[in-house]
Amino acid sequence: MANRGMLIVLSGPSGVGKGTVRQAMLKDKPQDFKYSVSMTTRKMRPGEVDGVDYFFRTKAEFESEIANDGMLEFAKYVDNYYGTPLKYVNDTLAQGVDVFLEIEVNGAMQVREKCPDGVFIFLTPPDLMALRDRIVKRGTDDEATIAKRLNKAREEIKMMQNYDYAVVNDKVDLAVKRIEKIIESEHLRVPRVIDNYKKMIGAVKK
Amino acid sequence: MANRGMLIVLSGPSGVGKGTVRQAMLKDKPQDFKYSVSMTTRKMRPGEVDGVDYFFRTKAEFESEIANDGMLEFAKYVDNYYGTPLKYVNDTLAQGVDVFLEIEVNGAMQVREKCPDGVFIFLTPPDLMALRDRIVKRGTDDEATIAKRLNKAREEIKMMQNYDYAVVNDKVDLAVKRIEKIIESEHLRVPRVIDNYKKMIGAVKK
Repeated sequence: MANRGMLIVLSGPSGVGKGTVRQAMLKDKPQDFKYSVSMTTRKMRPGEVDGVDYFFRTKAEFESEIANDGMLEFAKYVDNYYGTPLKYVNDTLAQGVDVFLEIEVNGAMQVREKCPDGVFIFLTPPDLMALRDRIVKRGTDDEATIAKRLNKAREEIKMMQNYDYAVVNDKVDLAVKRIEKIIESEHLRVPRVIDNYKKMIGAVKK
Repeated sequence: MANRGMLIVLSGPSGVGKGTVRQAMLKDKPQDFKYSVSMTTRKMRPGEVDGVDYFFRTKAEFESEIANDGMLEFAKYVDNYYGTPLKYVNDTLAQGVDVFLEIEVNGAMQVREKCPDGVFIFLTPPDLMALRDRIVKRGTDDEATIAKRLNKAREEIKMMQNYDYAVVNDKVDLAVKRIEKIIESEHLRVPRVIDNYKKMIGAVKK
């Protein structure tokens, strides 16, 4: 049953802790998915390894990948490119292995357009959940802080609407467990498994 | 956050072990959902308790419920009615509590029409999964047995298409764990949670 693998996309607002959750997921236990390493033009930092933390490329190399439709998604932040090489994702999915991406929200929306059957998980800051409590106990925050927080929350909820799941990052190990449950249960969805059953029947038709 | 509860429907072909899985789910640990007891006109068997195993009613009482639109779903098997009273389901969901139904496939399709946002889980017989192996090792089954099994499998796959998830009942405790993961992860789906977030923001708008 060499079905196509499942594409799992973890994203969320900047500062929510996507990288920490991703690292914890990769360490947690032998995973059934492959992590897709991003490509960047930013300088390698001490301790980083090419091909592990990122594929480190020159601006010219990155732009050539873009020109050749070699990127599943990409964006430019502070004069540097970041993105996901398409070939690794496609090859791995074709082998029937799930691929896990941890990317920025703009990139996630590019992927959503190209792979609508992916699983899109939005990591939410715990203070979005705690907003209600904070408002109830007013007085602790001044008007300007509350207004700023509310605007940020509105933006985050707007982003969330484009995802399949919302996972609160209150504690990293809890967030990891929730994401693992989502992955396992997505594998039981009828649209993902029914072809297996049909093939079994088809293969034995006379 | 008194959101409406989630309706969870477990169904599957007759003989697949729905009742056993349901009983194991109710025993497994304190559940966050309420089990909706079915109503029937069949005779009470030794050891059964009215209101626990079934609501035991006369044919006239059951038909009066049907006439008053009091049933979420019902069917007649071997001259007896079986069905799900609507009021308990509605009241419990309105309290924000999940409701778990374990019903026949015909009933599940009636519920699907009325509650499209329910979670519909199809329990599949393990031999549907093992079909491939059995065919490979032919000779052990005669032609007629294989043909019969294939027809049954085709019917089961046809039914499965109307469900959200397919869970193999290879071992009861494994099936229970899969269903519990589905329930947990369905609670993280954006369409189910986003109103909570919106309410938090709306509640504090000035």
